Amino acid sequence: MKKHLVFTLFFFSAAYLCYAQSGEVIEDFRPSSLNQPGKEYPQVNSQGYARFRIEAPEAQNVKVSLGLGGRGGTTLSKTEDGFWEGTTEGPLDEGFHYYNITVDGGKFNDPGALNFFGSTRWESGIEIPAHDKEFYALKDVPHGHVHQILFPSKSTDTSRRAFVYTPPGYHNELDKSYPVLYLQHGWGEDETAWTNQGHANLIMDNLIAEGKINPFIIVMTYGMTNETKFGGLRDFDITPFQTVLVDELIPYIDSNFRTKANQESRAMAGLSMGGFETKLITLNKPEVFSHYALFSGGIYEPEELKDHDNLKLVFISCGSSESPDRVKESVQKLQEANFNAVSYISENTAHEFHTWRRSLYQLAPLLFQ
Amino acid sequence: MKKHLVFTLFFFSAAYLCYAQSGEVIEDFRPSSLNQPGKEYPQVNSQGYARFRIEAPEAQNVKVSLGLGGRGGTTLSKTEDGFWEGTTEGPLDEGFHYYNITVDGGKFNDPGALNFFGSTRWESGIEIPAHDKEFYALKDVPHGHVHQILFPSKSTDTSRRAFVYTPPGYHNELDKSYPVLYLQHGWGEDETAWTNQGHANLIMDNLIAEGKINPFIIVMTYGMTNETKFGGLRDFDITPFQTVLVDELIPYIDSNFRTKANQESRAMAGLSMGGFETKLITLNKPEVFSHYALFSGGIYEPEELKDHDNLKLVFISCGSSESPDRVKESVQKLQEANFNAVSYISENTAHEFHTWRRSLYQLAPLLFQ
Repeated sequence: MKKHLVFTLFFFSAAYLCYAQSGEVIEDFRPSSLNQPGKEYPQVNSQGYARFRIEAPEAQNVKVSLGLGGRGGTTLSKTEDGFWEGTTEGPLDEGFHYYNITVDGGKFNDPGALNFFGSTRWESGIEIPAHDKEFYALKDVPHGHVHQILFPSKSTDTSRRAFVYTPPGYHNELDKSYPVLYLQHGWGEDETAWTNQGHANLIMDNLIAEGKINPFIIVMTYGMTNETKFGGLRDFDITPFQTVLVDELIPYIDSNFRTKANQESRAMAGLSMGGFETKLITLNKPEVFSHYALFSGGIYEPEELKDHDNLKLVFISCGSSESPDRVKESVQKLQEANFNAVSYISENTAHEFHTWRRSLYQLAPLLFQ
Repeated sequence: MKKHLVFTLFFFSAAYLCYAQSGEVIEDFRPSSLNQPGKEYPQVNSQGYARFRIEAPEAQNVKVSLGLGGRGGTTLSKTEDGFWEGTTEGPLDEGFHYYNITVDGGKFNDPGALNFFGSTRWESGIEIPAHDKEFYALKDVPHGHVHQILFPSKSTDTSRRAFVYTPPGYHNELDKSYPVLYLQHGWGEDETAWTNQGHANLIMDNLIAEGKINPFIIVMTYGMTNETKFGGLRDFDITPFQTVLVDELIPYIDSNFRTKANQESRAMAGLSMGGFETKLITLNKPEVFSHYALFSGGIYEPEELKDHDNLKLVFISCGSSESPDRVKESVQKLQEANFNAVSYISENTAHEFHTWRRSLYQLAPLLFQ
């Protein structure tokens, strides 16, 4: 079975290189796995091209934001039956991408695709099947629960929402308690991102089924307390969110879930802006967490961590199209200063969710060891 | 406070009647509570009119499906700044409505509104504030959890999703067990409907906080096992879903949640098609449930229930614009045949979610007494 898989991968890679060189698009398009039920479009092929088909018989022009990067997306052409069709000029990176459609100057979502909260709005999402997609696939293994909770927040005067992943067995083995990872989304996303786009729950289910990690709880909440459209991170004040997380959410989790409620059993990680928040909060509150992870979200300098006596792990990652050298150099400096630091570079991905799915997959086995 | 509320309601009702007679639209429009974060449109006013504003500067025509019922929705007019605007011709019923936008012949969702799964697709949703909206409002009370679970289903050869509401206290009082309501969505909807559109979790939280019900668990799963677009219910075969529900989901819930795993503590209810399913399954499997409820989903005849020895409650409801007489007559016949039967008619609502929110609110205090 494994040999077969390796062969298949090799075959597809070889075919891909061959066709890519000749510029030919292989006609094996299939509906994206993130389409709405029963919808045939958007489609993706084995090379990573995406094809779109939108009905708008009286429209003058229809464009898709995805496809040509800075060159303005993919312009669709009208077909005789009132649809607009088009294929990206080249293959996309493996994994998840947000996109939208412009119809006669108005921005809409693709009626065929599911929506995902990114860029402070619900956008269409498409999945380019990754060669390593098995690690976040839905499999016939025991599944944890994702709890939607509403916790009281005095500082913001409301009930705030969080999602809590509890591992398989949590609801049966009632005398067991678990360490906790607090995991933050990126700018413009919200507390739904890590399960919807990231498949964090399935990544955990699969790792646990394979015996690769010590089961832990993951808590995901909204990382912004202020405006929806906040701009520069330069003037960003972490205090309001830090209050929600440290003074309100953590105590709520510790009294409503069976946690190991101590620093040694508490980690914080985040992607992009969530990494920035992780860095600020772990520096402001060195007594709260013992494992820190930044996914495409900056680095630590050794001197920043010098008084962090109970620090067990620093994990820093990014995509290979981001700033891998900066990540590797930072981790090397941390290691030279005797910190337990680990770097991870996601090959052939950029500032996007596939980088962060892989980062969580790499991080999880290192936590709470 | 209460006096003030009554006065306000009276004032608005009086104002409404006055303006409605004169045909004047009150200019107190506010963003719908179901808009995406930070979006100003769609808006609703105190009379129940809805106003839309869509950007599409080069479009030829833009229409909204909501507003004129059978007369084709609301046609928007182009403004000088490249937007399309329009207001419904009359007020809408209180509560939740699905809708979509037609732009130059293509069907899209309103970029301002959140999406809800109905009609086998994710559609835009709008909320007309109801005079009784307090019963499903987010309040500063203890909140239950909504668990997303993935349960193994041999009959369909996959892991299927369900949502499970556990009441406040479930995760602390570990020696307590609870009765369970199995609650089904309508045609074209899915297992997300009862919490997203219906606010079932908030209805429960509020009822429990007021001491009006004995806390119970609610389980919501997808009620179709076959095609997305199934047509006539006449040829509908309940067997595949019945297998999933009775032979797979119920045992999973009973072994993974602290349930009272017996007929006396098990109820089934559903709206529209979910009511039809409730009727079929309770008739096929009289030994499984003891409380039956149909919301806009048909009626029971006394003879159909004659061998149902452990039947504790039959609840039948609909909106006043549906078939209230049929519901009342059915319940009267059931009462005459000595069944504990209750009818409920939701005033000034039709075949829509506000009818069903109210139905759940009426049903809950009657369950497991």
